[in-house]
Amino acid sequence: MSDNAAAVHPAVWAAMQAADAPQPPYDGDSLSGALDEAFSALFGRTCTALWVASGTAANCLALAAMVPPHGAALCHQDAHIEQDECGAPGFFTHGAKLLLAGGDHAKLTPESVSARLAAVGKGVHHTPVTALSITQASEAGCVYTPGEVAAIGAVAREYGLRFHMDGARFANAVAHLGCSPAAASVDGGVDALSFGFVKNGGMGAEALVFFAPDLAEETRYRRKRAGHLQSKGRYLAAQILAMLKGDLWLANARHANAAAGEIAAAAADRLIHPVEANEVFVRLNGAERAALREAGFAFYDWDATAARFVTAWNSEQEEVLALAAALRNL
Amino acid sequence: MSDNAAAVHPAVWAAMQAADAPQPPYDGDSLSGALDEAFSALFGRTCTALWVASGTAANCLALAAMVPPHGAALCHQDAHIEQDECGAPGFFTHGAKLLLAGGDHAKLTPESVSARLAAVGKGVHHTPVTALSITQASEAGCVYTPGEVAAIGAVAREYGLRFHMDGARFANAVAHLGCSPAAASVDGGVDALSFGFVKNGGMGAEALVFFAPDLAEETRYRRKRAGHLQSKGRYLAAQILAMLKGDLWLANARHANAAAGEIAAAAADRLIHPVEANEVFVRLNGAERAALREAGFAFYDWDATAARFVTAWNSEQEEVLALAAALRNL
Amino acid sequence: MSDNAAAVHPAVWAAMQAADAPQPPYDGDSLSGALDEAFSALFGRTCTALWVASGTAANCLALAAMVPPHGAALCHQDAHIEQDECGAPGFFTHGAKLLLAGGDHAKLTPESVSARLAAVGKGVHHTPVTALSITQASEAGCVYTPGEVAAIGAVAREYGLRFHMDGARFANAVAHLGCSPAAASVDGGVDALSFGFVKNGGMGAEALVFFAPDLAEETRYRRKRAGHLQSKGRYLAAQILAMLKGDLWLANARHANAAAGEIAAAAADRLIHPVEANEVFVRLNGAERAALREAGFAFYDWDATAARFVTAWNSEQEEVLALAAALRNL
Amino acid sequence: MSDNAAAVHPAVWAAMQAADAPQPPYDGDSLSGALDEAFSALFGRTCTALWVASGTAANCLALAAMVPPHGAALCHQDAHIEQDECGAPGFFTHGAKLLLAGGDHAKLTPESVSARLAAVGKGVHHTPVTALSITQASEAGCVYTPGEVAAIGAVAREYGLRFHMDGARFANAVAHLGCSPAAASVDGGVDALSFGFVKNGGMGAEALVFFAPDLAEETRYRRKRAGHLQSKGRYLAAQILAMLKGDLWLANARHANAAAGEIAAAAADRLIHPVEANEVFVRLNGAERAALREAGFAFYDWDATAARFVTAWNSEQEEVLALAAALRNL
Repeated sequence: MSDNAAAVHPAVWAAMQAADAPQPPYDGDSLSGALDEAFSALFGRTCTALWVASGTAANCLALAAMVPPHGAALCHQDAHIEQDECGAPGFFTHGAKLLLAGGDHAKLTPESVSARLAAVGKGVHHTPVTALSITQASEAGCVYTPGEVAAIGAVAREYGLRFHMDGARFANAVAHLGCSPAAASVDGGVDALSFGFVKNGGMGAEALVFFAPDLAEETRYRRKRAGHLQSKGRYLAAQILAMLKGDLWLANARHANAAAGEIAAAAADRLIHPVEANEVFVRLNGAERAALREAGFAFYDWDATAARFVTAWNSEQEEVLALAAALRNL
Repeated sequence: MSDNAAAVHPAVWAAMQAADAPQPPYDGDSLSGALDEAFSALFGRTCTALWVASGTAANCLALAAMVPPHGAALCHQDAHIEQDECGAPGFFTHGAKLLLAGGDHAKLTPESVSARLAAVGKGVHHTPVTALSITQASEAGCVYTPGEVAAIGAVAREYGLRFHMDGARFANAVAHLGCSPAAASVDGGVDALSFGFVKNGGMGAEALVFFAPDLAEETRYRRKRAGHLQSKGRYLAAQILAMLKGDLWLANARHANAAAGEIAAAAADRLIHPVEANEVFVRLNGAERAALREAGFAFYDWDATAARFVTAWNSEQEEVLALAAALRNL
Repeated sequence: MSDNAAAVHPAVWAAMQAADAPQPPYDGDSLSGALDEAFSALFGRTCTALWVASGTAANCLALAAMVPPHGAALCHQDAHIEQDECGAPGFFTHGAKLLLAGGDHAKLTPESVSARLAAVGKGVHHTPVTALSITQASEAGCVYTPGEVAAIGAVAREYGLRFHMDGARFANAVAHLGCSPAAASVDGGVDALSFGFVKNGGMGAEALVFFAPDLAEETRYRRKRAGHLQSKGRYLAAQILAMLKGDLWLANARHANAAAGEIAAAAADRLIHPVEANEVFVRLNGAERAALREAGFAFYDWDATAARFVTAWNSEQEEVLALAAALRNL
Repeated sequence: MSDNAAAVHPAVWAAMQAADAPQPPYDGDSLSGALDEAFSALFGRTCTALWVASGTAANCLALAAMVPPHGAALCHQDAHIEQDECGAPGFFTHGAKLLLAGGDHAKLTPESVSARLAAVGKGVHHTPVTALSITQASEAGCVYTPGEVAAIGAVAREYGLRFHMDGARFANAVAHLGCSPAAASVDGGVDALSFGFVKNGGMGAEALVFFAPDLAEETRYRRKRAGHLQSKGRYLAAQILAMLKGDLWLANARHANAAAGEIAAAAADRLIHPVEANEVFVRLNGAERAALREAGFAFYDWDATAARFVTAWNSEQEEVLALAAALRNL
């Protein structure tokens, strides 16, 4: 019941195996070379796209391109980069700070962002904020509408900030919104997107997509320097291209979202957050959890009062219905 | 009306000039060599003391000795290391995080510390907290009693944390408490103290005092590596020894505290924080500030509703009384 | 004609696909959990083994475990960590230095190591050397005998240094030596080995093997912090286990070495270095290179006078013989 | 017999004491504010000048302004930044490399620089060299002529490098050359100069002078972040202004150079390097050193065969003559 450990999609396997013929190492192969064009087509503008092996690497390389060591990035207090990456942003940025702001459902708001930025001191005694990062979908499984992205993007522009989007579940967000991927990101001012594939049927390849081309060039050095320029990079590029082909990324996310929707419907009165992607946060006490686990369901204890269920691109309808029934029967 | 820009005490000048005869450079001179013994005598136990030129350097070298790059230190959300050092802790620790907790008057409490520590995730996805830092006196000019220090120290020990004290105004705190310097710090479990002298009549020398000798050795390398091992270090050691001699540090702090006390008495109904050291935070609206400034008083706008007055080792009684009168007349 | 871009071995593919069933993410799966035992069996002592995606990551995590930011590691002036990793050691170690020494065929000698170490200044003005790194096989494709490893290890012990081995082509070295993997590494005092698989039939998984268990624990945090803790780590573990199974790593390396041997025999009077692994450095002028390239052979221009040919686990006998013939006919 | 431990010049003392009246802290005071103009007048062009407490801080802040973390700076293999600063450049630049080149008397040459730069690989596997640093006077006490500076500056421009000059003994170099300070530095293309005063009669203040104004702005943040923005900075500015006033820096350096010249004349057949500044490297065996030490002379053992004598702004003629006589009598 987790998307970051699910199997790899057959089309991804096939694409990887089709990449077996020797090609120049690192990102000198034809598949890696095709990424820019593929993402440019998807987003309807010129993009530079680099593969990396993890979302943490994608996020932190983006931040390092946006924030000097003596600077800061603003993010939600529940953001993955703040909570779950063992200080990786501090590593990649050489010690820049994350400034935290709030907002319901792990989503920043223009107001929470503005208020936090207004409180930052000026001058050399304070770390200048040079970037802002939001998570699409958020840590609470909630989605920024295009309008919400744009409103935050406007604040970013007002303060001269670069705008990063952690899209570990970007596919699920777009599937929920039913809009173009551009509308959910770059149209609102996003400069760099960590476009996640691993949680959505990939194996070990995420795309770091730059809409601001000036940010990409030094990132190539930083990727190498962080040990993330794999020599057989064509196998990573193959995964990503397979996910883009025929919008497999979108189909996979729709499947996962639909499964989450069924679970959510069964636990409607227990939901902590609106279910807009593939995560369902359910109020459950200890006895209820024990009962569910005894019945064979796996989930993550979010905190003392809630559990998190995550669906995947390959969640089986039978299991989903069984869980929904079990939740209804609690 | 600020202590970090006041003149240098005559005894400090005299000691510096007495140090003019050539001696081995860096900290190979007899004055630098006398610091360990001087602080050991003052604190009643074996200390290792290093001079540095600024409180930021002292604080951050202490943190670097206590926190690995992938770790974190806990401090108050208003702490100087969090708010006013341009990310210096991130620089010296190579990207470690500061975790923030609250507490009235910019003082942590055992409860706020415990609650924050309990919320830290375990495992490699989270930065392990390895140190705790408090400010004595706090950013709000308030003082931890020996009991309060010890209570926080007990939490630190419980969680296996090192304990740092930012004592930029340690002298003012001890003067307020009327206890021994050890009671205000190491007796409560403090492992390293940034003992400030610059705000108290010194010129450009603070002492980083290690009560945990294992922390000192690598710090010598880090001090050099940060460009803080000045070649004519004897002039820094001379300042510190002059401040310790005859407890000049204490006399200076008492003078400043007394002046603050007079100002506080005049603004008793406007105080935001108890006045326990040499800082007075006074509720003042814009018109009142303008009137005071027109009358020739200098102070710092803390925020929209309050001003900060800071007294110094050499605040003149006449000026203090004039300010007190002006505040009463508002 | 390069090993870092060759295809993936069928047994590795099969093992990866067999790992498709969901398991706990990161390194919580059974395959990752089997690595310690597998390497312990291979080396005949307790090992801790972590997968990472690249040799750069393996090397630099090892160095970071051995060298403080203010320290230094000694390596050959031609070493990959010095020449080809875009400063990655400086990134992972937070600025530690690489001190360089010489030696024929890109191999350090006890003498070159001792001489360089003896010249390092003492005290806080100089970066203390705390580690030594050698490459097995070397950048020149030459192999340290067990005796040579042990002699250098003895110098490391004498100076209190940790000992790292970059084994990007460790398999080729062991295949050449005909000894146990332990004899080629840990028996000579090696504390950590970057055991390469990508160049030898793997896809994107190298093993960082710690023989000194104290070095492993903090490395888990650093791996996460560097974005190298992939969520579907079981696919990396599967690659490594497949390579170890039935000593596939050794069979693959023997194949590559044999191919290199045939090329070497054909260019015996043009060799710059003894051919002991799978790299052949051949003296070739511009016209000769052009002729070979026109004939369809691919190779790397090492410098103005030499070309490097690299064989792989799947070099085809026909191609190898054709190249050998072409070299003979020059 | 060392310049980095000599007394402080009386005019410097006087200027410091004249700065005792309270002024805004950090560099908000009128003395700090006068530095730009003072150096602009001295160099005949617009300069930005920042005080720092040590040459290491000045050098490394300059390098950090010129070299990204994934980059490299080229310097002489004997340079202070490479040999004697405990890896401080790696700290301030977040891990950038120093590439080393040779040249007699610790001076780079256009040829040694060009040859080293030509050998640097291109692309993301190699650290791009973005800066070049020379020492004026060199570690061997030798001076670059204006023509030599300009020739190296031309190579820097050719390769698009920033050009830093470590001028810990810049005064001695200018005194030797008899040219303008600009001719010895910026006229040859230097972008930033660490202008040393501590070895020349100052106490604890060096000037980091930027001729390329774009480099200065971020350096203000880095200075704060490194703990080098002292709150009573006016005492540092006062030292520097006193040294500049009436060209005291030049008079002091001439005195030291003259003293070195007398010692050199007495040991003319034992000199290892030309004596062009205030350092004299003399071939002396163990017995000779012992004899000199018994006679009361202090000096530094450079290596097994040579000793280094350093004169200062206040070297007494009597002592100098005594040493000269003793050297003649060996």
